[in-house]
Amino acid sequence: MAKKNLLYAQSGGVTPVINATACGLIETARAHRDKLGKVYAGKDGIIGILNEELIDTSKIRKKHVAQLRHTPGGAFGSCRFKLKSIKENRAEYERLIEIFKAHDIGYFFYNGGGDSADTAYKVSQIGKKMGFPVQCIGVPKTIDNDLPITDNCPGFGSVAKYVAVSIMEASLDVESMASSSTKVFVLEVMGRHAGWIAAAGGLAQQEKGDPPHIILFPEIPFEQKAFLKKVDDAVKTWGYCSIVVSEGVRDKKGKFLADAGTRDAFGHAQLGGVAPVVANLVKEKLGYKYHWAVSDYLQRSARHVASKTDVDQAYAMGRAAVELALAGKSGVMPIIERTSDQPYRWKVGEAPLSRVANREKMMPRRFISRDGFGITPSARKYLEPLIRGEDYPPYNKHGLPEYVKLEHQLAPKKLPPFKH
Amino acid sequence: MAKKNLLYAQSGGVTPVINATACGLIETARAHRDKLGKVYAGKDGIIGILNEELIDTSKIRKKHVAQLRHTPGGAFGSCRFKLKSIKENRAEYERLIEIFKAHDIGYFFYNGGGDSADTAYKVSQIGKKMGFPVQCIGVPKTIDNDLPITDNCPGFGSVAKYVAVSIMEASLDVESMASSSTKVFVLEVMGRHAGWIAAAGGLAQQEKGDPPHIILFPEIPFEQKAFLKKVDDAVKTWGYCSIVVSEGVRDKKGKFLADAGTRDAFGHAQLGGVAPVVANLVKEKLGYKYHWAVSDYLQRSARHVASKTDVDQAYAMGRAAVELALAGKSGVMPIIERTSDQPYRWKVGEAPLSRVANREKMMPRRFISRDGFGITPSARKYLEPLIRGEDYPPYNKHGLPEYVKLEHQLAPKKLPPFKH
Repeated sequence: MAKKNLLYAQSGGVTPVINATACGLIETARAHRDKLGKVYAGKDGIIGILNEELIDTSKIRKKHVAQLRHTPGGAFGSCRFKLKSIKENRAEYERLIEIFKAHDIGYFFYNGGGDSADTAYKVSQIGKKMGFPVQCIGVPKTIDNDLPITDNCPGFGSVAKYVAVSIMEASLDVESMASSSTKVFVLEVMGRHAGWIAAAGGLAQQEKGDPPHIILFPEIPFEQKAFLKKVDDAVKTWGYCSIVVSEGVRDKKGKFLADAGTRDAFGHAQLGGVAPVVANLVKEKLGYKYHWAVSDYLQRSARHVASKTDVDQAYAMGRAAVELALAGKSGVMPIIERTSDQPYRWKVGEAPLSRVANREKMMPRRFISRDGFGITPSARKYLEPLIRGEDYPPYNKHGLPEYVKLEHQLAPKKLPPFKH
Repeated sequence: MAKKNLLYAQSGGVTPVINATACGLIETARAHRDKLGKVYAGKDGIIGILNEELIDTSKIRKKHVAQLRHTPGGAFGSCRFKLKSIKENRAEYERLIEIFKAHDIGYFFYNGGGDSADTAYKVSQIGKKMGFPVQCIGVPKTIDNDLPITDNCPGFGSVAKYVAVSIMEASLDVESMASSSTKVFVLEVMGRHAGWIAAAGGLAQQEKGDPPHIILFPEIPFEQKAFLKKVDDAVKTWGYCSIVVSEGVRDKKGKFLADAGTRDAFGHAQLGGVAPVVANLVKEKLGYKYHWAVSDYLQRSARHVASKTDVDQAYAMGRAAVELALAGKSGVMPIIERTSDQPYRWKVGEAPLSRVANREKMMPRRFISRDGFGITPSARKYLEPLIRGEDYPPYNKHGLPEYVKLEHQLAPKKLPPFKH
């Protein structure tokens, strides 16, 4: 049997470690040259595949592939583009199959969240129907940690570590000067639907009184009175109040707090940012001096402070994806299975894409303390191993991380352009 | 001659490495126990000294002193409190001398910026006049890098490294998805009066086309038209535009851009943040999707990504301060003297406080490119060595940095309370 080629694509928001997954996948495929052909990567994700822009990764030097392990961002480009249902847009699926045929693709790897799992699943179905079966493997990635079945998602652990370290450090700053200056600090973090990332901030609290003193979760409707009391109590007890707020916090009517506030001088719509809204509320009602930070993309690209657990798992997912392909599997996704909490142990498992697709794993209520402003011991037990260990990128002599920048060489096109 | 005690205080905004200076000072004083008494530290800076709240650092275990080297924030507390002129408030100066007498202080070390140098200088003058001469040593510290004479200021290099690494990482993220998503990213950094920190962001640009594509300096009046053209050019040429903006950017009338904008829904005053103002402008005028981050205290507490050059220099300043004291000096400050650019070499020098006090070192115009949106090779030559090298804190088994938290033991009070 002739060797078939592999096609890999990154999907959705990138992470500090999605390239570690790509690294694991490419290195493992190269280690099986006897059975596997070239690895192509879709330029800017699935859009590039539809446009027949396939990066030929066989042109990438071994050293550069290895450097993907410690390079943040998405080295092949990504996009937010969900394929419609097969019924609605059969042409897109058929185009994919044509691309597969033209480039002798036998294996399709889609590295993303729930939507990508759904796409990979649909592609595996349509391939069969069209008489060109391709082995479709989903590869998990999302900082939101919201995929079902897998114990956690590659990408999340590093963002969690960034948030925990950042709130710890900024709080030391605030504490130093609180007696005569800033008393309230607010750090805004990502997580529009679920509070996983905000919860990770709670790991900074190692002893009673440690920051953060308050976490605002999307799961808990914001109550101004209870919040302000909690702020005031923290300032009176500990001298200052350190707050982590999820961008997804809503009021009791379900309206995002970030939308409740800011307009520019011309009355234009909100500029975004729930941190300034919360900080200003504290100032208005309690009079405390405040500072706030919005870490935005910084948190999901901070490879310089990645979690070793996360990097290892991200790499392992890439490797396992190829191994599943070699084992003849299709319509599946490698997952992380936790086998022990103490000591933390995990292994690679697998799940059918049909069970992963289009399901969001919410954070359990038991992870949030009764008063709604902190995390519980169960949450800590779950979260803590995920930020463990350091995995620094190498730095160059100029004091900057040595992140690799690939020169993409596209495979020659063989098909007419695709009309979307 | 009886051994005299030392009194150390931290002043103004803290930095990722001000405790490294404290570490150098305490360790060096301990190494000269034959000549020097105890090291006291003012609790929360000069305010604590006026209130006779003196932390007895001789109670701190050797291991914990050593951990100060890698702990951000101000371990003894700091404050923004400038002593008035001797004429205006002689009582405060007299109180200091009384405290010195009561606790047998022979050496006063004030660790801060220009104001602190001024205070240390005045204290040295008044001590002489009042017949209780105390050796007063200024110890440099400021993330703003605005002290004269010294080549650079401890604290700045680590903030510079944080900013350069952060814009580099976030830009990789933006670049990955720019073809179909966010095209403009804005990172706001500190530096209300001078663009040193913003300029450091420019170090991320190692090759043509690298981010940041635009830096907005407080030194250059903001011109909307030229700025928007530059943004559009970057998006059209490189696919995206990455921007570092100083909080101190002003329009042609000298008004802070951060004040130009945001009001909450109730019409309340601005919530702060120039990044959202700039990002919104881009959206309004060019229609590009944007993201923005405000790193605020995160940048000046990020010990996890400190510059080794900076940590070494901060420690050396603490050590040199004690050595100057041992050499009988007063009214001086240790400084960093650059002796060579290539290879970068520096040594410790000294400067009279009278020449340091109340002077701000502005960034030279020749460090800013002709179009006002970038840095020049001279700037790069100056800045680059300051972010060189990594100096990671140790991490505990929970994945968090092992920052020390001191239990402060105060020296018994000997004087009646001070009425401010």
